[in-house]
Order: sequence, then C-alpha cells, then structure tokens
Amino acid sequence: MRLSLLALPLLLFAVPASAQQAVSSPDRLMHEQMLTLDTHLDTPVLFERRGWNFDQWHEYDWDNSQVDIARMEAGGLDGGFFVIYTPQGPLTPEGMAKARENALMRAAAIQRVVSANPDKLGFAYTADDAARLHREGKRIVYQSIENSYPLGNDVSLLPTFYRLGVRMASPAHNGSNQFSDSARPRPGDPVHNGLSTLGRQWVAEMNRLGMVVDGSHASDAAISQMIDLSKTPIVLSHHGPKAMFDHPRNIPDDLMRKLARSGGVMQMNTLFLVPMASVEGRDSIEERQAGWETMTPEQRRRLVADRSALDARAPQSFATIDLFMRSLLHAIKVMGVDHVGIGADWDGGGGLAGMKDITGLPIITARLRTAGYSPADIEKIWSGNTLRLLRQAERHAAGARK
Amino acid sequence: MRLSLLALPLLLFAVPASAQQAVSSPDRLMHEQMLTLDTHLDTPVLFERRGWNFDQWHEYDWDNSQVDIARMEAGGLDGGFFVIYTPQGPLTPEGMAKARENALMRAAAIQRVVSANPDKLGFAYTADDAARLHREGKRIVYQSIENSYPLGNDVSLLPTFYRLGVRMASPAHNGSNQFSDSARPRPGDPVHNGLSTLGRQWVAEMNRLGMVVDGSHASDAAISQMIDLSKTPIVLSHHGPKAMFDHPRNIPDDLMRKLARSGGVMQMNTLFLVPMASVEGRDSIEERQAGWETMTPEQRRRLVADRSALDARAPQSFATIDLFMRSLLHAIKVMGVDHVGIGADWDGGGGLAGMKDITGLPIITARLRTAGYSPADIEKIWSGNTLRLLRQAERHAAGARK
Repeated sequence: MRLSLLALPLLLFAVPASAQQAVSSPDRLMHEQMLTLDTHLDTPVLFERRGWNFDQWHEYDWDNSQVDIARMEAGGLDGGFFVIYTPQGPLTPEGMAKARENALMRAAAIQRVVSANPDKLGFAYTADDAARLHREGKRIVYQSIENSYPLGNDVSLLPTFYRLGVRMASPAHNGSNQFSDSARPRPGDPVHNGLSTLGRQWVAEMNRLGMVVDGSHASDAAISQMIDLSKTPIVLSHHGPKAMFDHPRNIPDDLMRKLARSGGVMQMNTLFLVPMASVEGRDSIEERQAGWETMTPEQRRRLVADRSALDARAPQSFATIDLFMRSLLHAIKVMGVDHVGIGADWDGGGGLAGMKDITGLPIITARLRTAGYSPADIEKIWSGNTLRLLRQAERHAAGARK
Repeated sequence: MRLSLLALPLLLFAVPASAQQAVSSPDRLMHEQMLTLDTHLDTPVLFERRGWNFDQWHEYDWDNSQVDIARMEAGGLDGGFFVIYTPQGPLTPEGMAKARENALMRAAAIQRVVSANPDKLGFAYTADDAARLHREGKRIVYQSIENSYPLGNDVSLLPTFYRLGVRMASPAHNGSNQFSDSARPRPGDPVHNGLSTLGRQWVAEMNRLGMVVDGSHASDAAISQMIDLSKTPIVLSHHGPKAMFDHPRNIPDDLMRKLARSGGVMQMNTLFLVPMASVEGRDSIEERQAGWETMTPEQRRRLVADRSALDARAPQSFATIDLFMRSLLHAIKVMGVDHVGIGADWDGGGGLAGMKDITGLPIITARLRTAGYSPADIEKIWSGNTLRLLRQAERHAAGARK
C-alpha cells in the first residue's frame, strides 16, 4: 500500500524522468500508437507472491519486479506472452508430477489475475485478438510455456494447455530433459543430439494444435531440428546473437540466417550480452528477497541498502542500452527486419543498465527511429513478426483439421 | 440482459412469492442467520456456458439453471461444495487424458468465476474459512471432485487439486472405473467388489492430504469399505435412504447406521425419491436446451413451451417437498441429527416439485422447525456436520505431517 502511494506522482506523469529525458514527444506518441508485445514476460512467477498485486505499481528497487499493469501503461507495453515457467527437475515420476503441479498452479494463477482485472486485461487466443484487445484499451495476455518438462512422458497434456489459452511453448530450460537437449546441459543429463523422439512428437503436436514452437533454451542442434521439423516457422522467444557475446544461450549468425530463411523470428533478449556477474553474496540477497512480504520495515530497508551496495560493486551485471541496441541492429542486419523482435526476459533476469523495468521501453522505439527504421518496420519488431508466426500456426492447424 | 431486467422486481423483494407464502418471518430470519452449505452444487457445469453469468439472476423456467449468486442471496444459501464433475468415459489413456482435461478446465473456470467476483465470493480451504467468509458477507466456495476418473492410473494429481482448493472427492460416478465399483455399473465395466487396489491408495492419499472422502455414486460395498478404510469419517455428499425408494443410488438403513457409527454424514438428495420419468422427448428437449445461447427469441419461446408441455405430461419427475422432508426426517431418525445434512444435487438433476431452484430453501428450515428441531440442530444439518468432517480430515492430515 505504501508503495502505491509513493508511486502516485509517477503515475500522474505516466513516464519516469529517465525515459522522458531520452524520448522525444513524437517518438513517444509513435510508441504509444503502435501495438507492442514482448514474447517472454516471466511476471507470472510473482502472481503467487503474497501481497504482490499485478494491478498495482511496484518499484524495481524495492521488490525487483519489472512488469505490472501500471508500468505497462507507463512504458507503453500493450501485452505479451505471459510465461508458465517450470525449473528443470529430476526426470522421475515424482519430479514430473511436481512439475506438472507447478505448471498447472501457475496457469491457475494467470486465470485468476486476468479474471480479477476484466477492464484492464484480456486473454488473447488468436493473432487477431491482439488488435481487438488493443482497440478495447486492454492489455493483451498471451500465454506460453517455458520448459515442457511438466508434460511428463507423453504430449497428452499439451491440448489442455492449449485450451487454457497457451499458444507458444519451448521444449526445455536449463538442463536437458525428456524432449530436448538444453543450451546449458547439466552433468548427468540425457543426450539426444538435439530433440529426442518424444521431442519430435512434441513438435508435431504443437503444429497440430496451432501453437508456436519456441526454441529458446534448447541447444543449437535442437533449434536447427525444430526449424527443419516444424510445419510453421519457429520463434526464439528470448535469445541473442553469439556475435555480440559468446554464450551458449546466444546463436551464431549462420543459425540466425537459417531461422530467417525458414520464416522464423528471433526476439532480442537483454540477457547474455555481458558476462553474468557471479558476485559473492548475490544468492544470499536473493534468498532474503524471497521473504520480502514477511519482513519488517527495518529488514526491508537493510535489504535494499545491501542490494544497492552489491549492485555498486558489480555494475556489469546488466548490458547497457547501447549494447542491447547494437545487438538488436546486428540481428536485423543478419536476419532482416521481418525476422527480429523483442523478448527481454522481464522478471526472468532481464533488464538493462538504465532500463531496470518496462517503463523505459519507449527508448527502444526512439533508438530504432534514430537508426532510420520506419514506423511500419518498428511495429513489425514490436509485434507484427510475432503475430505473423501465430497466424501461420493457426492457419496450418485449421488446414490440417479440414 | 432481458432476464436480469425481468428479475429486478424479484431481487427487490429478495424472496419469490412461493417461498414467502410458505415461510414465516421468524423462520426466514433464523434461516438467514445460520450458516447454510450444500455439499453438492453442480453449478460449475454452467460456468463455461456462453452468455451465462454466475453473477446474474437466472430463471429455471428459461435456462434450467438452479443456482447463481443472486439466488443464493434470495434463498439464503451461504455456500457449498462446487463440483468438478467428469462423466465416466473409457478406461483408456485417451479417455483418461480427455477426462483430465475436462476436470482441469472445470477447475480453471471455478478459479475465473471466483476471481471475477471478489466482493461476493471467496474460496474456502479450511473448516474455519466458512464462518470467516460468512462474517465478511461473501458466499463460500468449497470445491469437490465428482468422479476421480480424471486422475488416471495413479493418484499423483490429487495433491494438485488439493492445492487448487479441492477438499472433497468421490472415486466414481455412473459406471465403475479404475478406483471403484459404481452404484450404477454399466455392461463391460471392471468389477472390484467395492474399491480397487488403486481405490484403496486413493483413500489413503485423501486422508494424507486432509480431504473428505465422498462415497456418493459408489456401490454400497465400496461405501462400506471407504467407511472401514478412511482414517476420518466419510460423507455421502448427495444420497438418500433406500427405505423411501428402492434405487441403487440410495442406501439401506443398516449402511446408514454403519456410516453414523463411524462418525460420517449423509447429505440428503432430492433425486431418486420417485421413479425418474423416462418420458419420450426429454432427451431431445435437453439437446435443444444446450443450444440456448445461439437460439433466436422465437426458438427459445418454443423450447420453453415444449418443455412446459412435457413437464405437464410428466409431473412425477420431481419428488414433492413433503416426500423430501419425510426422507430427511427418516435419515435423522435412523442416523441421528449429527449425521445428516443437505446435498440436493442442484444443477445436477436435483430439485423438487414446488422448489425448482434454491430460492425455496428457507422452506426446509421452516419444516425442520415445525418438526421440532432447535436452531442449533438445524444449523448442524445445514453446515455443522459437514464442517465437522472437514475439520477432522484437516486435523488428521496435520497430525500425520508431524
């Protein structure tokens, strides 16, 4: 409650000072008028946090959150794919049952949050729904699955998630699983040299249902196989170019070109553009952060101070806006403007120095404008390319049903 | 919309004329003041019906529905167990996957409806939650599972439903399944002579979680075994005495006595007290009813007329209020007032001649008063006995966790 009161003056101005300085009025207006989507919003991890309300303004410096309805309004973000994320656990019946529970509870939380805000949020199930909800003045809630581990040893739960509204899914996360090798395998993981047999069935079922295959977090070999196997172009929902920084979660230019040739899209991530600062004490800060809601005001003050001190010691954790823009422009140069978008991993570890939450998004639009891109091209980057993939997936599924 | 406008005068008076005639002001006041729950509200089957809103007043004569928030207010029903019902299908992997999807979608619909009405509805997870929500002026939403068929060939999904808030479940419905023989088996069904081995594991898992075992729809042998096996007393959430009418869904007095001795509770059903009128044309009327939302006004008028004509030809479909009360009093006589309650199968085929929906419920309170029961006893029947079972289940689970 105190946070919302503190945030009131910000809400009245609608744009934080930092963004106002960087973005001209015409650029801001352009940003407001176009349809903007981010393909990887990890925000549902916060939906079950006690005392955290998606409907209220929050401050990154207080609770590390980056997306809520108020900041979507302030940052001109119309919507995106809200993620049902499950961390990779053991490939046992117990592990899979626990993962299934995690994913279903997350899905239920998304249902609750959208239902509780009928005037501000709306579920989108088709590509056309985005424009309709935008006209109605509602934020657009697509859903996606990050890590199909919760599906278990068959794909029979995928139609259920489809019926719940999920329209995009990735086979794996950190750690290889029953579907796919991961870009970041762990010791003892299964090795499929890309997708497993079950992973190939998974691609076929995704196509049959009309869902967009998401290769992010899978190994390069698995991504390449998804491009080959999928009947409709795939997305990398939050990914980056290895040319900018050599990290297993980024892909080389030739794979980017293969993706573009197939009609696919890479959504530019803010993560993995600089070395992750492995700073001593970061884990303990995050552990304390998890207990935020039960902390005394004094404990909260101390935590914020400790985190600030840590951030001051390790400022290199976040890429700069400049580096992000160079990466985005590199991707456009390699793949073409029809094959690049934005999936910044908000609330999943994303963010930039000078853009700690989504209120700064108009800066990206302004920078693209400065780089010479037309409003039409910029809107492709913000939503058009993603919606094209979804439309292709829909049409394939509708055709296959005939 | 037209229906709600028509219903406005009724809402202003809060009680329909029929109930007003039958219930004195003191009895009505008593009914309003006590905590009333029904243990088997099938209303969630309507939550996904297009154009039907739980928040609005509906008329039974128009859409055959029996429960909504407005009528809960008018009939003084504070809440109940909202059912996740799944019809019995084939015991195949495909059948079970489809059933799982049905149950999860129904659970999601309940989450949506409760979230969309935060001022009027609240989820109850413990026995104590009922009184708290009652004080807050909110209708009490417990959840139950009718037919555990969707769980598949193990019980690993039961904790997920528990986390979603489900606190009561029955093993089977019409047709025996992987857990239990049904009171109404079908040709070719498996035969377990009561519960299967998996059914016994199911009882143990129900106890471990702190859920109330519901024997309704199971065979008498299975009910008897559940009484023996369960660590806490079981409920028959919508059931009747065979002494009133010889139907497989009713139980003999000796099984009622065994249930009472074990501490269990039978919740009096309105169904199976008279022969079900198997009237030609009933199925086709129900089929037409399902298409209500897409019908023209003229088609609706014709359907309502046809149904009225059919009801006139077959008035014996519903038991009378008198017969229901005789059955309830018989159950109390056999089992004692601590072991009987009300689960009328609203929106699941229940209802009485002269009480087509829940607006007439104060009549039951008035009749119990006339029969000489004290307010304290009547409240046991309306909620106390059920909440005792839930509290016992909670305490057992809490003790087992220690």
